[in-house]
Amino acid sequence: MIDPRLRQQIDFILEIDRLKEITRRTYLASGNRRENTAEHSWHLAMLVIVLAEYAVEPIDVGHTMKLVLVHDIVEIDAGDTFAYDTDGNNSKSKRENAAADRIFGLLPLDQAQSMRALWDEFEARVTPEARFANVVDRLMPMLHNFYTDGKGWSEHGVTIDRVVERNQTIVAEGSPVLWDFVEHLLKVAIAKGYLKA
Amino acid sequence: MIDPRLRQQIDFILEIDRLKEITRRTYLASGNRRENTAEHSWHLAMLVIVLAEYAVEPIDVGHTMKLVLVHDIVEIDAGDTFAYDTDGNNSKSKRENAAADRIFGLLPLDQAQSMRALWDEFEARVTPEARFANVVDRLMPMLHNFYTDGKGWSEHGVTIDRVVERNQTIVAEGSPVLWDFVEHLLKVAIAKGYLKA
Repeated sequence: MIDPRLRQQIDFILEIDRLKEITRRTYLASGNRRENTAEHSWHLAMLVIVLAEYAVEPIDVGHTMKLVLVHDIVEIDAGDTFAYDTDGNNSKSKRENAAADRIFGLLPLDQAQSMRALWDEFEARVTPEARFANVVDRLMPMLHNFYTDGKGWSEHGVTIDRVVERNQTIVAEGSPVLWDFVEHLLKVAIAKGYLKA
Repeated sequence: MIDPRLRQQIDFILEIDRLKEITRRTYLASGNRRENTAEHSWHLAMLVIVLAEYAVEPIDVGHTMKLVLVHDIVEIDAGDTFAYDTDGNNSKSKRENAAADRIFGLLPLDQAQSMRALWDEFEARVTPEARFANVVDRLMPMLHNFYTDGKGWSEHGVTIDRVVERNQTIVAEGSPVLWDFVEHLLKVAIAKGYLKA
């Protein structure tokens, strides 16, 4: 017999395996294929470790890692909403809330609540950790787009003003140093034709 | 101009993107394809969050997450060594050490040293965090094999005695509760023909 609490935890662990089959719009740096959401989440946690010194406020690195590891699990039900899809983003919140209820609800109640709290914290961007978690979540797709010569941007006709509109406030407020870096990248991207002016 | 320290950090971040293209022998729970090492690392960090209460000693969850997120990065150069490949495992240490030198060496010196220390700690299994990190690293492939009706095991003719030999000490010493659970799974696996006696 398996203890009911452990049974619930194992069910959750197996369910979130499906995040590996959710495909994002961004390509790997090699350009070989599109990225999936589970490996993206791993990459963000590595960015947190490596780039934490650029957070505008001191952050708890372990807690920030939890935020990025958990923040996209809702995509198992809600799918990945492309950053520049206006209609999709209007319905995103409702779809993702239902997903959070179902998926985190697989866990024992105490863990369902703490996992849900991590997701809510990431989305609300009120704590220093959530602000920096959102910085790396915005930074990495720009890096992937840049280092694939704008592959994701050009496939979807994304222009510089939309990239700035979507990312500037979140990145600049959470990390002025990293926004300076992004501004440099975007200038080069336009000069090289990766991104339309 | 990009600050040289930030340049090194970005180079490391781009380099480790390649971990997403390292294929392991285990299949996803859906059986649709084999797993890659980056998404596997994400999954292990989630196991650490969810299963930490079963560690035989108290662990720092944030530190244990770092250990599992970093422990397989060397596979970018050294490849994934199949758990039941004796020859491969004999040469594994040398290949992985060279990989650690090169890949972590892309970072600024202080971060190269701390990343290398995480990898060494995981491998040495001396701290409570490293012991539990190794538990989840052994547990997850058994779960994947079990829930794909033994797909990975049967493809490689793996027998129960080899599974026990490879995993019992590490899992049972780090988490008696989780080893009890594994023993239950393995009994069912034999009864159902997923694994040869």
